[in-house]
Amino acid sequence: MNQPLQVNLTKELLELENFIIHRSCDVEQWFRSQWLENQAPFYGSVDLRNSGFKLAPVDMNLFPGGFNNLNPDFAPLAIQAASVAIEKVCPEAKRVLIIPEKHTRNMFYLKNLFQFKEILKNSGLEVRIGSVDTSILESTNIDIDENHFITIEPIEKREDFLFLKNKDGSEFIPCSIILNNDLSGGVPEKIKNLGQQIIPPINAGWPTRRKSSHFQFYSQVVKEFSLLTNSDPWLIDPLSEKLDNLNFSAGEGEDRLVETIDTLLASNTKKI
Amino acid sequence: MNQPLQVNLTKELLELENFIIHRSCDVEQWFRSQWLENQAPFYGSVDLRNSGFKLAPVDMNLFPGGFNNLNPDFAPLAIQAASVAIEKVCPEAKRVLIIPEKHTRNMFYLKNLFQFKEILKNSGLEVRIGSVDTSILESTNIDIDENHFITIEPIEKREDFLFLKNKDGSEFIPCSIILNNDLSGGVPEKIKNLGQQIIPPINAGWPTRRKSSHFQFYSQVVKEFSLLTNSDPWLIDPLSEKLDNLNFSAGEGEDRLVETIDTLLASNTKKI
Repeated sequence: MNQPLQVNLTKELLELENFIIHRSCDVEQWFRSQWLENQAPFYGSVDLRNSGFKLAPVDMNLFPGGFNNLNPDFAPLAIQAASVAIEKVCPEAKRVLIIPEKHTRNMFYLKNLFQFKEILKNSGLEVRIGSVDTSILESTNIDIDENHFITIEPIEKREDFLFLKNKDGSEFIPCSIILNNDLSGGVPEKIKNLGQQIIPPINAGWPTRRKSSHFQFYSQVVKEFSLLTNSDPWLIDPLSEKLDNLNFSAGEGEDRLVETIDTLLASNTKKI
Repeated sequence: MNQPLQVNLTKELLELENFIIHRSCDVEQWFRSQWLENQAPFYGSVDLRNSGFKLAPVDMNLFPGGFNNLNPDFAPLAIQAASVAIEKVCPEAKRVLIIPEKHTRNMFYLKNLFQFKEILKNSGLEVRIGSVDTSILESTNIDIDENHFITIEPIEKREDFLFLKNKDGSEFIPCSIILNNDLSGGVPEKIKNLGQQIIPPINAGWPTRRKSSHFQFYSQVVKEFSLLTNSDPWLIDPLSEKLDNLNFSAGEGEDRLVETIDTLLASNTKKI
C-alpha cells in the first residue's frame, strides 16, 4: 500500500489504464449501477499481482487488516467512508463491538486494530473490542507503542446477545458486531445464532466462503467490465483451478499442484 | 469559511460545545436516526451568526454558492461526499446539467460554479452548464483566471426534456439536472414539467419556500436536539417573526420593522 507498483505496464494494460482515467465517468457510472443491484461489502482488501502484462487480484479479504498502513493524509476519507458504510448497513448503530483475530501477540495486527477502532470512533460510534480468545479472561491493555495501548475484553453472552462487562458492573450492549476475524479456525459457538447484527455476516467467513467460487464470480464481473472497457478480460482475471486434498505440511498433492499449474499456464501461452 | 469564529463563547454555549465534542457518538447517532426519517438535502449552505452567548443560523441556502471558498485540502472529502449524494439521489446518473444563476458577470459566482463543476466531474459525472439566461445564445467561454475558463451553453428543450447541442450536431441529454439557481426570479418556463429529475426539486426554490416556515421547522428540530444535549434551545435558535408588505427601496414598512424587532428583543431580554 505504501509502495507504488514498480512494473511498467505493457500496451494492452496501458490502454485499459487510459480508458479508466479518461472515461472515469463511464466507469463510475458502471460501479453505481452495480451497487444498485449488489450491495458492496462493508469493508475489504484485495491483494493484487502485477506482471506488467497482467494485473489481477489473487485474494480478497472480507475481514481486512492493514488499517495501520493507510496513508494518514487520507484519514478523513476513511472516516467519511466508514460513516457512509455504517449509515447504509446499520444506521441505528451507536455502540459497536469489534471481534478481532486472536493474534494478540502480533504487533502489526494490533496496530491495525487500533487504527480501525479509531476510524470507527471518529465516524461517531462507541467502539470496544471483545475477543473470542478464551485466554482473555479480563479486560487487558496491550501497549502498541510508547503512547498508545489497545484494550481487549472478554465477551459475555446472555441468551442470544453478546455484551461486555463495565468496571462499574453495568453492561456494554453493542447494537452491531463488526467481525475482523476470518473465522478460519471455525465459527466460535459464542457468535452463532445472535440477535445482534453481525457485519459482515458469518457466512462471509472461510468456513463457508470458497476462494474458487469467489474467482468464478469475479470472472463474471470481469467479463461485464471488459465489455465496458472494450478490453481483453484476461488482462485482469487471474488463472485459477480448484484442487482438493492438498496438504503442504505433509507434502501431499504437490505433484498434482505442479501439474495443474503447468497445464493452466500452457493453455494460456498464446497470451504471454 | 476561511475565518474562524472570533467571538469567545460564554458558559452555556461552551457547555453545548463540550457536549458535542465529548458525546460525538450520541450526536452522530442522532443525526443518523434523523436521516432515516428525513432525507438530507442534496446540498446546502448555512449562514451562522455568533454573538458569543447565542450561535444561530440566519439563512439556509438550498442552492449554495461559495464552493470556491472550500479548503482545497478537503477537496477529496467534497468529492467523496458528492459521490455519496449522487449515489443516494440519482444513482443512474451519468450526464448532469447544472443550471446556474444568471450572474455571468459576477466573478466570485463563476469561480464557485467552476469549483462545483470540478467536484461533480471528479466524482465521476459528465457535467455541463446550461443557462436559462435568454441572452446566452451560443456556447460561451468565460475566463475565470489566467488558466481556467468556464463554458456556459444555451439550454434547448424538446417535449419534456432539456438538452444541449454538441458542436458536431449531436445532443448532450442529461439524466439529471442540478439546480444552482434559487429561482428568486420565478420559475423559468423551460424547466417546468420536465421528464428529467431536478435536484433539488423546483419547490425548494424561493417562489415556494418561505424563510418563515423554514425557521418554524428549524425551531422544532432545535427542541429535539436540545433534549439530547440537555441545553437551552434558545442558544441556537434565532428569533424570527414574519412581516408582510415590506419594501425597502420604497421605504415602506420600516417603522413596523423597527417595532417588531424591539418587541422581539424585549420579549427575550431575560435571556440576554
